[in-house]
Amino acid sequence: MKLYGAIEAGGTKFVCGFGTGAHDLTVALFPTTTPDETLAPVIEFLKQANLEAVGIGSFGPVDLHPGSPTFGYITSTPKPGWTNCDLAGRVRAALGVPVGFETDVNAAALGEARWGAGVGLSDLLYLTVGTGIGGGGIVSGHVVHGLVHPEMGHISIPHDPARDPFPGACPFHGDCLEGLASGPAMMKRWGKAPERLPPDHPAWELEAHYLALAAGNLALTLSPQRIVLGGGVMRQTQMFPMIREEFRRLLHGYVRHPAVEQEIGAYIVGPKLGDRSGILGALALAEQAAG
Amino acid sequence: MKLYGAIEAGGTKFVCGFGTGAHDLTVALFPTTTPDETLAPVIEFLKQANLEAVGIGSFGPVDLHPGSPTFGYITSTPKPGWTNCDLAGRVRAALGVPVGFETDVNAAALGEARWGAGVGLSDLLYLTVGTGIGGGGIVSGHVVHGLVHPEMGHISIPHDPARDPFPGACPFHGDCLEGLASGPAMMKRWGKAPERLPPDHPAWELEAHYLALAAGNLALTLSPQRIVLGGGVMRQTQMFPMIREEFRRLLHGYVRHPAVEQEIGAYIVGPKLGDRSGILGALALAEQAAG
Repeated sequence: MKLYGAIEAGGTKFVCGFGTGAHDLTVALFPTTTPDETLAPVIEFLKQANLEAVGIGSFGPVDLHPGSPTFGYITSTPKPGWTNCDLAGRVRAALGVPVGFETDVNAAALGEARWGAGVGLSDLLYLTVGTGIGGGGIVSGHVVHGLVHPEMGHISIPHDPARDPFPGACPFHGDCLEGLASGPAMMKRWGKAPERLPPDHPAWELEAHYLALAAGNLALTLSPQRIVLGGGVMRQTQMFPMIREEFRRLLHGYVRHPAVEQEIGAYIVGPKLGDRSGILGALALAEQAAG
Repeated sequence: MKLYGAIEAGGTKFVCGFGTGAHDLTVALFPTTTPDETLAPVIEFLKQANLEAVGIGSFGPVDLHPGSPTFGYITSTPKPGWTNCDLAGRVRAALGVPVGFETDVNAAALGEARWGAGVGLSDLLYLTVGTGIGGGGIVSGHVVHGLVHPEMGHISIPHDPARDPFPGACPFHGDCLEGLASGPAMMKRWGKAPERLPPDHPAWELEAHYLALAAGNLALTLSPQRIVLGGGVMRQTQMFPMIREEFRRLLHGYVRHPAVEQEIGAYIVGPKLGDRSGILGALALAEQAAG
């Protein structure tokens, strides 16, 4: 069996792993400090195994274009020390194996497609709702990243100030999806961290409304065979039935398919890999990089 | 050189053609009446040529899933006589060649990708704005059609009733994109057909705003390398500069790429194939079907 390496590069920690698949992954965590300090133990950990390839799902913004001189870089991040960091290149140089590279949320989408809620499907949408909101799409088995990479968290959705006077928390767009529905947006609107709001608080109905609007727009655009909603805010699983119902109400007969009309409980779901979507997506990237 | 056949199946006319590519297409038009009456001259016309395969871009809704028992059918259309019409099957049976099948707007997207504004690009968005609004996406060279097919015209966008008190014209969703910005929506709002509104009428600024909102959402979701805006309403070419400016204003630094930041005139463009995007897309489908 071939061994693959995986790195989920996050702003606070790097999750690293190696294995042959989802069932035998050995994992280690390292705090994110400077690139040198962070990558040294990551490389040391991965050197234990005789790897065919490594996959990286990274925080961003990143350059995903193989032809670009900064391919595999973290580019214009505000995170100190990481601007123009050649993450993929450093890992490749240190380990001497092919390296696959994607955004963190694209990797998570790929992880769910390979071993989780999207097994057997060619078209999948993964949306993470937490500190930020991000989306990864799989179309005909390919991760969506054309000109740059999707920024689904920043789509514009209807916002009725009579129902929700909160102006939105996005520094770039005010009341875009992330500005209305991220964890920090909830915190600002209600004055409490989302996990401290009781399950029957009206916050959840409003949140479900925004996420249903987003899921509807994304479904009308990408036509996924399943929608996976993950991230910290979606641990509030009471929202799933509310989102499903609101999604159908808003679509009003559009997306005519039994998956939506009769089996929506299997259409809008949580991640099957829990919080391992990202690291297993990185492992799937390694498989692809090995060719 | 191999000869291919093409059918652009519309609600009022069938455009048919055969040729080896965009430069030598022989075209004929037949009015859409009943399936029998319409298909007889279409088949007769295509039988003139010794075809390798035929491609069809069809009005819908259609079934695009090769595994489905109704693959290649027009399914639940309100158009009399066409419900459950096995369009692809009838053409295949009559001509004895492989048949490629897509929605009309997916075919137009493919046509622009193959011979028009998207040549050399792997990721393209084509949006048509006319009697309805529809979008076709190409991701990594593949036409987007997962669960069903996209219905990008029906995405929800912000609608400020203080700026635009018109409630929207979509019978399903009221003020979705199509409800706010299609030709019929403009006609209802202003009491005049769009082509009769002067180029400096405030209608065009509002229309450009809605189309920029839509283009922004679709770009944040699909990350296309270029956006092609076609259809009757886009013949008002004074809108292109307005849409480009509003697109950048609304994105506010998102989609950081020279294509958007420095060369937006080449990023949001009209169709290069004029009104031949659809029929040439059908020809591209025939090429694909021939394998």
